[in-house]
Amino acid sequence: MKISEVCLSVAVDVVSPYGRKASLDPLMLLVSDDLQGVNQLILERMQSPVALIPELAGHVIAAGGKRLRPMLTLASARLCGHAQRRHIALAACVEFIHTATLLHDDVVDDSELRRGHASANTVWGNKASVLVGDFLFSRAFELMVEDGSIEVLAILSRASSIIAEGEVMQLMTTGDTTTTEAQYYAVIRAKTAQLFAAACRIGAVIAGRPPAEAEALDGYGLNLGIAFQIVDDILDYSAEQARLGKTIGDDFREGKMTLPVVLAVERADAADREFWRRTLETLDQQPGDFEAAIERMQRTGALADAMARAHHYAGEAARALDGFRDGAEKSALKEVAAYCVERVS
Amino acid sequence: MKISEVCLSVAVDVVSPYGRKASLDPLMLLVSDDLQGVNQLILERMQSPVALIPELAGHVIAAGGKRLRPMLTLASARLCGHAQRRHIALAACVEFIHTATLLHDDVVDDSELRRGHASANTVWGNKASVLVGDFLFSRAFELMVEDGSIEVLAILSRASSIIAEGEVMQLMTTGDTTTTEAQYYAVIRAKTAQLFAAACRIGAVIAGRPPAEAEALDGYGLNLGIAFQIVDDILDYSAEQARLGKTIGDDFREGKMTLPVVLAVERADAADREFWRRTLETLDQQPGDFEAAIERMQRTGALADAMARAHHYAGEAARALDGFRDGAEKSALKEVAAYCVERVS
Repeated sequence: MKISEVCLSVAVDVVSPYGRKASLDPLMLLVSDDLQGVNQLILERMQSPVALIPELAGHVIAAGGKRLRPMLTLASARLCGHAQRRHIALAACVEFIHTATLLHDDVVDDSELRRGHASANTVWGNKASVLVGDFLFSRAFELMVEDGSIEVLAILSRASSIIAEGEVMQLMTTGDTTTTEAQYYAVIRAKTAQLFAAACRIGAVIAGRPPAEAEALDGYGLNLGIAFQIVDDILDYSAEQARLGKTIGDDFREGKMTLPVVLAVERADAADREFWRRTLETLDQQPGDFEAAIERMQRTGALADAMARAHHYAGEAARALDGFRDGAEKSALKEVAAYCVERVS
Repeated sequence: MKISEVCLSVAVDVVSPYGRKASLDPLMLLVSDDLQGVNQLILERMQSPVALIPELAGHVIAAGGKRLRPMLTLASARLCGHAQRRHIALAACVEFIHTATLLHDDVVDDSELRRGHASANTVWGNKASVLVGDFLFSRAFELMVEDGSIEVLAILSRASSIIAEGEVMQLMTTGDTTTTEAQYYAVIRAKTAQLFAAACRIGAVIAGRPPAEAEALDGYGLNLGIAFQIVDDILDYSAEQARLGKTIGDDFREGKMTLPVVLAVERADAADREFWRRTLETLDQQPGDFEAAIERMQRTGALADAMARAHHYAGEAARALDGFRDGAEKSALKEVAAYCVERVS
């Protein structure tokens, strides 16, 4: 966010506790040197004599994304007083695991656009996306082995199998309009929030902090990840997103049972129920159905309530940091929680 | 192999140094108790509250296969005098990694049959195959973490990224009739032989044996894996396989540049070259083309010479064991090398 935008948002947005729209800027400022190191290491370690691997991996990694997860590892390590350089390599591991899941998710979802670019599988095919994902995933474990901590390996191998469980759960709820809010949370805790939690927990572990601090950072990451995913799911129904040139409606087209849908279905009358069954279970979608879905979500308060849930989890995330000493790291991480629910993209 | 079959093969097959057709029986006999433990652990650790995971994983794992790779870990550990139970869990890791690559390979190759059963992706879809593969792969690392050896983690994480590189290399040579024999070896060393090598090397590592023994077992596994894959590739053009009810011709239909094809193309005249380009590069295949391909492989001696190469590598594998003390383990592992080239399925 540029200064002019910050000033603008001060004028239009007074709900944020920051007196301005919350942003990632304080976090980015705090870890920018370390993040350069992470980006450098990512570039080095995604290399392979097999040319397609750096080419495809580079496409996905360089396409950017916010590097939110590795920044969480960097800031958590700093918050815990880690004074060495181990957090650099472990932040790169976290990003490699995240990139591998994106690549496998591209295959899975036939999503055509990821971060505004053509997704890897539409350019190189499903086969290459699966295999390069496998390569990055293995490379992440090689980096952890070089770091040498069995505890870190335990955290990230466990997170990885939970992520896979979450993705399979999501697959099983897709197109199932009886999916409950509890099932939705189980999915996103596993597929998204676990990696946020692990990324943060690692910071305490490598700093040699007591279990209570590792737990607190895990709780911060977990709640942050839940809030982040809820907002992601809301944004897929956001006209603002469309105005910014982002693709919206992917989840709807695929019949994904995200929170806005789950809440709207719960509150639907018989006619609306039939609408959701037709569009999401049988995927029999007509022009205008997506707009009609958004109308139903607004009418039933599903979108607003989903956002309220996101705010709740973001608040829990911020509260999890209360026990840490005040300072730039703590306030930057608290602002990340606010950013996750205020962001518009 | 039953006793009666052994007697029969003594009569018909005198080329084997064993005076009978070489088999996996001595290896299986040697490790049968341990293998039960491995199978038990595999069953336990493929469980998940997400029902589709054990269902799909169970399909692939229970479909059987020979459990050759975990048996290699078990026998190598015994050969090196390992007296604890660590080889059980690590053999299960090796099988999990192998199963994960099979699942991802199913997606990749659209292969319809694997081990004579419908492959997982035709029953549950590509999505589930990718994700359950990811789960098993992560679970393998969780098991290694429980074992606690950074050295074992280093061996298997390195093997995993090399496997992925090999699979990508294979993807890039598929349909490319200029693929050389050297490129073929680079592919199979990475995609197949690395895991054989790692499976064997682990045995020496957990037994605390000196590096030279770990190297020797690595060399055994690497050469064995190369021989195994060459024969696998030959069998896909084998009438005997078809007679046994196995699907053959998958590699041909997919345009895979396996050794029989590489050698046949190298020796082709202009007309034959055109045949290979049409069938493998453009995949413009007519009825009778597969039979015509086999005829060309026989006429040019490609199949026979591929088999001669396999014998060479099997011999190298056996020789790699020369430095170990004589005994049941050593002779069983030597027989595995002979089995890999004599097997008909």
